Amino acid sequence: MSDEAREFCGLFGIWGHDEAVFKTYLGLYSLQHRGEESCGIASTDGRELLSHRAMGHVNDTFTPEVLQKLRNRAAIGHVRYSTTGGSRIENAQPFVATYARGPIAIAHNGNLVNVAELRRGYERHGGVFQTTTDTEVIVHVIAKSCNQQREDRYGQCFNSLQGSYSLLLLTPHEMVAARDPQGFRPLSLGRLEDAYVVASETCALNQVGAEFIRDIEPGEMIRITPEGMKSYHFVPPEETRPHHCIFELIYFARPDSSVFGQNVHETRKKFGAQLAREHPVDADVVIPIPDGGNSAAVGYAQESGIPLDFGFIRNHYVGRTFIQASQDRRAAGVAMKLSPVPEVVRGKRVVVLDDSIVRGTTSRVKIAQLRAAGAREVHMRVTCPPHCFPCHYGIDFQGKQELIAARSPLAEIRLSLNLDSLGYLSVEGMLNCVRPPKDNYCTACFTGEYIVPFCEETGKFSLECGGPKT
Amino acid sequence: MSDEAREFCGLFGIWGHDEAVFKTYLGLYSLQHRGEESCGIASTDGRELLSHRAMGHVNDTFTPEVLQKLRNRAAIGHVRYSTTGGSRIENAQPFVATYARGPIAIAHNGNLVNVAELRRGYERHGGVFQTTTDTEVIVHVIAKSCNQQREDRYGQCFNSLQGSYSLLLLTPHEMVAARDPQGFRPLSLGRLEDAYVVASETCALNQVGAEFIRDIEPGEMIRITPEGMKSYHFVPPEETRPHHCIFELIYFARPDSSVFGQNVHETRKKFGAQLAREHPVDADVVIPIPDGGNSAAVGYAQESGIPLDFGFIRNHYVGRTFIQASQDRRAAGVAMKLSPVPEVVRGKRVVVLDDSIVRGTTSRVKIAQLRAAGAREVHMRVTCPPHCFPCHYGIDFQGKQELIAARSPLAEIRLSLNLDSLGYLSVEGMLNCVRPPKDNYCTACFTGEYIVPFCEETGKFSLECGGPKT
Amino acid sequence: MSDEAREFCGLFGIWGHDEAVFKTYLGLYSLQHRGEESCGIASTDGRELLSHRAMGHVNDTFTPEVLQKLRNRAAIGHVRYSTTGGSRIENAQPFVATYARGPIAIAHNGNLVNVAELRRGYERHGGVFQTTTDTEVIVHVIAKSCNQQREDRYGQCFNSLQGSYSLLLLTPHEMVAARDPQGFRPLSLGRLEDAYVVASETCALNQVGAEFIRDIEPGEMIRITPEGMKSYHFVPPEETRPHHCIFELIYFARPDSSVFGQNVHETRKKFGAQLAREHPVDADVVIPIPDGGNSAAVGYAQESGIPLDFGFIRNHYVGRTFIQASQDRRAAGVAMKLSPVPEVVRGKRVVVLDDSIVRGTTSRVKIAQLRAAGAREVHMRVTCPPHCFPCHYGIDFQGKQELIAARSPLAEIRLSLNLDSLGYLSVEGMLNCVRPPKDNYCTACFTGEYIVPFCEETGKFSLECGGPKT
Amino acid sequence: MSDEAREFCGLFGIWGHDEAVFKTYLGLYSLQHRGEESCGIASTDGRELLSHRAMGHVNDTFTPEVLQKLRNRAAIGHVRYSTTGGSRIENAQPFVATYARGPIAIAHNGNLVNVAELRRGYERHGGVFQTTTDTEVIVHVIAKSCNQQREDRYGQCFNSLQGSYSLLLLTPHEMVAARDPQGFRPLSLGRLEDAYVVASETCALNQVGAEFIRDIEPGEMIRITPEGMKSYHFVPPEETRPHHCIFELIYFARPDSSVFGQNVHETRKKFGAQLAREHPVDADVVIPIPDGGNSAAVGYAQESGIPLDFGFIRNHYVGRTFIQASQDRRAAGVAMKLSPVPEVVRGKRVVVLDDSIVRGTTSRVKIAQLRAAGAREVHMRVTCPPHCFPCHYGIDFQGKQELIAARSPLAEIRLSLNLDSLGYLSVEGMLNCVRPPKDNYCTACFTGEYIVPFCEETGKFSLECGGPKT
Repeated sequence: MSDEAREFCGLFGIWGHDEAVFKTYLGLYSLQHRGEESCGIASTDGRELLSHRAMGHVNDTFTPEVLQKLRNRAAIGHVRYSTTGGSRIENAQPFVATYARGPIAIAHNGNLVNVAELRRGYERHGGVFQTTTDTEVIVHVIAKSCNQQREDRYGQCFNSLQGSYSLLLLTPHEMVAARDPQGFRPLSLGRLEDAYVVASETCALNQVGAEFIRDIEPGEMIRITPEGMKSYHFVPPEETRPHHCIFELIYFARPDSSVFGQNVHETRKKFGAQLAREHPVDADVVIPIPDGGNSAAVGYAQESGIPLDFGFIRNHYVGRTFIQASQDRRAAGVAMKLSPVPEVVRGKRVVVLDDSIVRGTTSRVKIAQLRAAGAREVHMRVTCPPHCFPCHYGIDFQGKQELIAARSPLAEIRLSLNLDSLGYLSVEGMLNCVRPPKDNYCTACFTGEYIVPFCEETGKFSLECGGPKT
Repeated sequence: MSDEAREFCGLFGIWGHDEAVFKTYLGLYSLQHRGEESCGIASTDGRELLSHRAMGHVNDTFTPEVLQKLRNRAAIGHVRYSTTGGSRIENAQPFVATYARGPIAIAHNGNLVNVAELRRGYERHGGVFQTTTDTEVIVHVIAKSCNQQREDRYGQCFNSLQGSYSLLLLTPHEMVAARDPQGFRPLSLGRLEDAYVVASETCALNQVGAEFIRDIEPGEMIRITPEGMKSYHFVPPEETRPHHCIFELIYFARPDSSVFGQNVHETRKKFGAQLAREHPVDADVVIPIPDGGNSAAVGYAQESGIPLDFGFIRNHYVGRTFIQASQDRRAAGVAMKLSPVPEVVRGKRVVVLDDSIVRGTTSRVKIAQLRAAGAREVHMRVTCPPHCFPCHYGIDFQGKQELIAARSPLAEIRLSLNLDSLGYLSVEGMLNCVRPPKDNYCTACFTGEYIVPFCEETGKFSLECGGPKT
Repeated sequence: MSDEAREFCGLFGIWGHDEAVFKTYLGLYSLQHRGEESCGIASTDGRELLSHRAMGHVNDTFTPEVLQKLRNRAAIGHVRYSTTGGSRIENAQPFVATYARGPIAIAHNGNLVNVAELRRGYERHGGVFQTTTDTEVIVHVIAKSCNQQREDRYGQCFNSLQGSYSLLLLTPHEMVAARDPQGFRPLSLGRLEDAYVVASETCALNQVGAEFIRDIEPGEMIRITPEGMKSYHFVPPEETRPHHCIFELIYFARPDSSVFGQNVHETRKKFGAQLAREHPVDADVVIPIPDGGNSAAVGYAQESGIPLDFGFIRNHYVGRTFIQASQDRRAAGVAMKLSPVPEVVRGKRVVVLDDSIVRGTTSRVKIAQLRAAGAREVHMRVTCPPHCFPCHYGIDFQGKQELIAARSPLAEIRLSLNLDSLGYLSVEGMLNCVRPPKDNYCTACFTGEYIVPFCEETGKFSLECGGPKT
Repeated sequence: MSDEAREFCGLFGIWGHDEAVFKTYLGLYSLQHRGEESCGIASTDGRELLSHRAMGHVNDTFTPEVLQKLRNRAAIGHVRYSTTGGSRIENAQPFVATYARGPIAIAHNGNLVNVAELRRGYERHGGVFQTTTDTEVIVHVIAKSCNQQREDRYGQCFNSLQGSYSLLLLTPHEMVAARDPQGFRPLSLGRLEDAYVVASETCALNQVGAEFIRDIEPGEMIRITPEGMKSYHFVPPEETRPHHCIFELIYFARPDSSVFGQNVHETRKKFGAQLAREHPVDADVVIPIPDGGNSAAVGYAQESGIPLDFGFIRNHYVGRTFIQASQDRRAAGVAMKLSPVPEVVRGKRVVVLDDSIVRGTTSRVKIAQLRAAGAREVHMRVTCPPHCFPCHYGIDFQGKQELIAARSPLAEIRLSLNLDSLGYLSVEGMLNCVRPPKDNYCTACFTGEYIVPFCEETGKFSLECGGPKT
């Protein structure tokens, strides 16, 4: 699915380490798959904030000079693919501003649904906005609470936000991590020597050598100061209603991460095994579409007994430039990225594992490549159910009309992709593979059952459309 | 003086022209001497604002692609050298933001003195700031007035600003130009076909082919809409107290501009003639330090009867890179920029005209060059009085201790620069050369008489230090 | 092995196609693994040669503008990692020059061993050299033959070259492809519509949609002109002594390519199966070091019956910048590129497949990662024999002292890498897996038996050291 | 004339100084006006040559890092505008190559007329060429002489060159400077402490603090080695026929330089005074077109008694980008570079001094600017005779049809430029101003009398067209 759905954001923070900025750099590197558009780091020396943001990859942005300039004992970092707000350097994060209590940096992963209302309210009282991001609105929420003296002041602020958010805040005096009461997006807490580390995925904890402690809980806020760490529940645990985004397990998270209490690679292997049970086929070889189908192919092969082999070679040199070269060369770009190994598929009945079909464009090219390389039959198995509904909590599927599964019946998709058979994972089967309880997951993009309702009339997600369905 | 004092800002705006953005580009080009650090243009199509800002020169920033992207029938532009606010892209102008009444762009030349107080007030009510510029504060002032329906609403806002400001505002519906009640900085109005043009100096009007109409008056605001132009005096003319910055005439403005009702080149020729009367000398040749001393040298030569010649050749290829190469090569940088013509000065008694001596560093190099080229005597004449006091209205002299004239008696400066004689223009003589009345000019950097007082104790300019002196 | 041994060069040429330059660009893309340092394309319109070369990747070098500028119906391209000649743009290829017969472009993969002698000869007669490359010497050889009228003139020239070379030549009138009489480096011929295509590996033929015809034979030269293709054997087939570089099969070539008459992926699977027979072990899981160990891991798992799983995740975002950041961060760079999946290896006995151990540095990091992730035992299997001798035909192993296998006995290497067991493929076992006859392969880097002798005294490869050994 | 005729090349060399490379950098800076297209420096440590060349200005090319890398006790440098050879980095100088006697760097100012013949000869014997420059041919000439043991070997080589050349050669063992027997281009020798310095103009000697010794003589070669300096006349002085390019005095050289034994500024003042005698006019003010007309304006004003004033202001910020922006904006570019001062010319009868009229395009814009600024009458005086013939010794006038004076009678040019009067300097008057004897100067571009004949039939300069005329 790599080119069709777009990731969103990744967060990393560390408080109390001599190499805090370099560790943040390493952490962002391992979260790069969560956002390739822009990146940034803010750090503090206990008095002021320093920051550096840029369009582009971690790799291109952070030179030794930049890291040296930011060098401090506490830092937060962010990688971004825009979900709201345009593609501009001004929208890159961490967002840094000053208000009555001094400087603050904020990094956000998610999508607020009441941001227009909040913004309108502030503007009515003279508020000035320079970006179109959720994050700037969050800063205004915090600035409005500047006179409150409660130590859980930030938590009170978060209560006025609706939608999905995992957040990191940094001021000269504290680092704060928080997660919305539905726990849409992951956020994990770790420890590295005396330092606390927070990251969107555990792969970043591993990367910096930190030990995983636990996930930040839905509706929980962690505040870390020179005095230590303290936890606050701005929504009482018994009132939270977990809605973990199941797409993190299917597609977004890295296989070596654990999110929502389970290893991603192992869960995907279970998806593959479940697919082998739901959609068995008489075939000669199981091949993954790298890298998204790798884990599931192992599960499918083990469950089915059909041998696994590498039918596609991934070209690691294909950069972003090529793909953007021109519209009519897009197919060439896909074909450039993955090349079939003729000897693996020639004359064979092939089962292909992939993580999703969104628009179908790239799937079609890959299947054509297999046919051209001599495959006798091509059977596709997809590690999620048909993808019929847009996401309003941070995943950019750009409206229902783009989703091939939303437009076409299964048989038609199979024909359109030139497949001998096509099998999607069932919603029930999928939920059997993840860590229970099943109703702790958001499956709205498959079922259309949003925790906050979507208004078909306005074509927009809206709180004013009616009460929550789920 | 070119490397020692720093210019501040230049403004250009045009409303109602098909080539508005290209004209703004040309206008900024001819105002580049007013600010080399960053530049920007904002334009509108009547619905939204487009903008592009960057560190660096107009020449490097605006490519045909950028100009094409901004293409609209109304635009404002800005070139900047920071007087307040650090050297960062975030501080580049025009500043663009959104508030209750929609998007607004603002370009500012000057220095507000009550900005800290204003900012503190907004922060107390939840205000959020992303830069350290005066301009962001001005936008907050305007945003607070969003519910006022008076058509001179902006003028009411300007009344709460103290200090120097020439301003340009652009929204989808109007362009606004305004000048502080003291008229510290110049701002001229012109007409190009059906379009109105506003610029810091008339050289920009000439450059785009616009006809000069008149200066914007101190305390006046001009509002240009599709319905036409309308003038408002937010301070009644009889209550304004003009304090035009005389340094515009001495140094900042381009010789081909007219500012404060007089041509700069002609005024400088008068300065030179006045110097010949105040400080005559028996000499063989009059030579200018290019380009700052050119105009005055003509006046000195004509009044004294001593022939003018070109004793220094300016190397046009010396870029910023060289000068910044390294501290110990700074002298080499000065020597690189200007080369003496030995045949002009060898064995001669030379009168050198320059526009100012600030720290004395570059003057010392130039005089040494003349001596090395064989000059028998070197007599320096400076087209302004000794420069003893800092400026608080927009000129960056960085404190009294840097000003050689503030530290040392005249005789000592002469010795330190290795001169046979040194003559400064008198305050009275200078004021005799400018367009009357004399007390319409701010001469505080020579006399220490500030219209708003400077507090010696705090080492800062401050409203709280006492009432106005002048 | 990815960071330790360096690839050398890749060639692509096409004659008679409207999209010749774009096809060359695609072809070079798929040969990028053969040389990341510089790249270039030369094309002809039948009258003159156009060319573009640059340091860096194909991806960064060839913009749509550059491709458009080169647009012609015939082109050759080159990707390079320097084997001889320094890392400078002047040394990038195709090398373009003019001599008595007009312009010529030449692209070379290999390493000549008599280049110093040839060069000295030309210099004695007034020859001028601007680079330190083999390629410039080859052009001089050709220029010297300018008065010969034989149509196999180029072949006569090639007879004076000693060492390894696959070559592509382009003039306005012809494209020539040739391979040394030992056939050290691969070179394949294909057809795309009416055009002839030549490429270092068949993956490039597949990429552009060309049909594979056959390999260029050792000692053969193919000349393509508007009149068609003609073959010449500048060394009679019966006198050639094939010495195909076995490292192409082990490491260099892409798995989807066929080189020396066999598919690389399938051959590597056989290496893996052979390793399972030579070095069986009681274990729980087989994991590859991506991507070099992927193919062999499939073979090892199938032969041994131990399940295959993905124990390492490859981070696709790690660019060259990171690795070069600093010496002390090199280990971090390796760890960044591959992350273990703890759930796959925790508590397990792991067999790890890799393609080689050169210095041992990166292997040590990877094994430490597996231990840290909880692996109970780590058994390493290497798909080639111990690597004890330098290569003189184009592979950059930089002298014997760098080769861990050349310095240390097996048991010591095992301990130094902290392995439970270590198994290398035997020379005999390896040769059993490749397409016979076995003595058609060069295995000098494992056996020290060079077809052209290496002089231990001078520490250099030299023709003067004695006659050929093999 | 600045945009219409193109300068050619500048040379700088220094042998035996700790700061040799930095001095070369400074020297090239002051010679930048002689070539803006590319620049380069080669240096030696006595064993090998290091070099760095790039397209663009000295300012952009030589960073502290590059200078540090080149750091050595001997260096030569070059700035270039292409006269022969295209605009490519390969053609930038110094040209560095290796031949039988080791590495050699060569920097060349001039234009050889027998280069095609020489090149053809070498190609016939297997010579290989990589560029289209004269300089590469010169290296081949030198390489052919590699077996000669005479210490004036280089001089013998120069005897086979025909046309104009000032040359600098650098090898690890020596620096050589030479000038063609006609002495077309200037080349001066200086001394800085124990080091010898050679430069195209004395302004570069002044810039680095070197003392002027004397000009290199026509037909002379200076060889500097660790043993000291030695002079050789490869053409006996009595056989040389000086033909100094008079355009150096009119336009190319910097006013502070002395070339051909006279200061450029003083000579131009004499041109101005002579013009006042040849073409007197009743006028109110004399104004120069900066900077080319500056010196002559001083002379015209002094001779005529009409006061000098600055009627044009030069905008120092107009970079190359603007000018190249687009064809239809070229006029805007000229107008951007020079702005009239209305107060100086309004209602006045103006005499304008310029250094030449080539195509007339820019002159027309400037005169229109003066008219628009209110000038009552505009009288143009040009400091050279009508420019009717192309130059074949290094000045790029691109053929007769471009020269307005060659196409049109004087009266027509005057009308076309909208002038009240137009006066060119006479050939005789011009020669009266320069250092005698008069027949030591080449005036072919005014008189058509070439020392080497130009073939009207072929439209090319050619030795085969007949014997020398002069």
